[in-house]
Amino acid sequence: MEQHIQQAIKERRSIREFTEEPVEPELLHQIITAGIWAPSGLNNQPWRFVTIRDKDISARLASLTHYAHIVEAAPALIAVYLDKEKMYDSVKDHQAAGACIQNMLLAAHELGLGAVWLGQILKNKQQVNEVLQLSEQYDLMAVVALGYPLHRTQQSRRLALEDVILHELGGITP
Amino acid sequence: MEQHIQQAIKERRSIREFTEEPVEPELLHQIITAGIWAPSGLNNQPWRFVTIRDKDISARLASLTHYAHIVEAAPALIAVYLDKEKMYDSVKDHQAAGACIQNMLLAAHELGLGAVWLGQILKNKQQVNEVLQLSEQYDLMAVVALGYPLHRTQQSRRLALEDVILHELGGITP
Repeated sequence: MEQHIQQAIKERRSIREFTEEPVEPELLHQIITAGIWAPSGLNNQPWRFVTIRDKDISARLASLTHYAHIVEAAPALIAVYLDKEKMYDSVKDHQAAGACIQNMLLAAHELGLGAVWLGQILKNKQQVNEVLQLSEQYDLMAVVALGYPLHRTQQSRRLALEDVILHELGGITP
Repeated sequence: MEQHIQQAIKERRSIREFTEEPVEPELLHQIITAGIWAPSGLNNQPWRFVTIRDKDISARLASLTHYAHIVEAAPALIAVYLDKEKMYDSVKDHQAAGACIQNMLLAAHELGLGAVWLGQILKNKQQVNEVLQLSEQYDLMAVVALGYPLHRTQQSRRLALEDVILHELGGITP
């Protein structure tokens, strides 16, 4: 059995260097569509998005994070928000945002794009809202930087299974 | 171009009814492996897991949630935890847990299994830790119930893209 999904999950890397080729709006829509098919508690779908393909706005956002060079160089950005009026449980809504972003990263990978999930910019989330002309109703969860990868040499490591499985209970009898 | 991943993301459903066929430990390991290949902030990998294929333990967990019938009937459960000693930012760590769980759900779907992400049990997370003999160092994020689906007729709905995209900035010039 071919296991495309598990393979993609393992092969996907954070891509931080992009070619100058623009990312078509249609691809951003496909990526957001993947995001919104994540599950959410009570199916509340609290996620909201801003797409950015504007160099001036990207430069203003870049000034708000330590990772300015990535934000500035990315041909496209998607800011992922939670709509506070749709939230019902902060832990579960933050989890849902994470599930949504992971779907977006996997879809980007499948579309031949590279992407990186940027969280450090959250320390300036109020200023990000000002740049994007959003009220306090919207709580920034992450900025995903996107583009065609300059290379795919990025390596990553994970703990071994025995380091993350605390207990395996049952199944001893046949 | 075949788009297996985006298709799987859209086809995956929460599965709440299972056959009695057991789920092999090897499949649970594959699912957890998919989970841990999620990204996490600073690659801190705060997730930890307990696998449960023991009817007595499942019954005790079932008594701790409104969704007792699902927990009791599922041939396998995976409890997903955060290790508080590995956390660095609660919002980002909860997001990472969500990304991890989404990978697990997608892997389960690819493996022909059905799964559902259960969060309501978090209201009794201390008792869950007692049943699973875990200290307060571990913070329950969700229980994923798994098994072979009794059917795949579950429907789901999502908002339209225009209802979740707040702004599309830039790219007006060709």
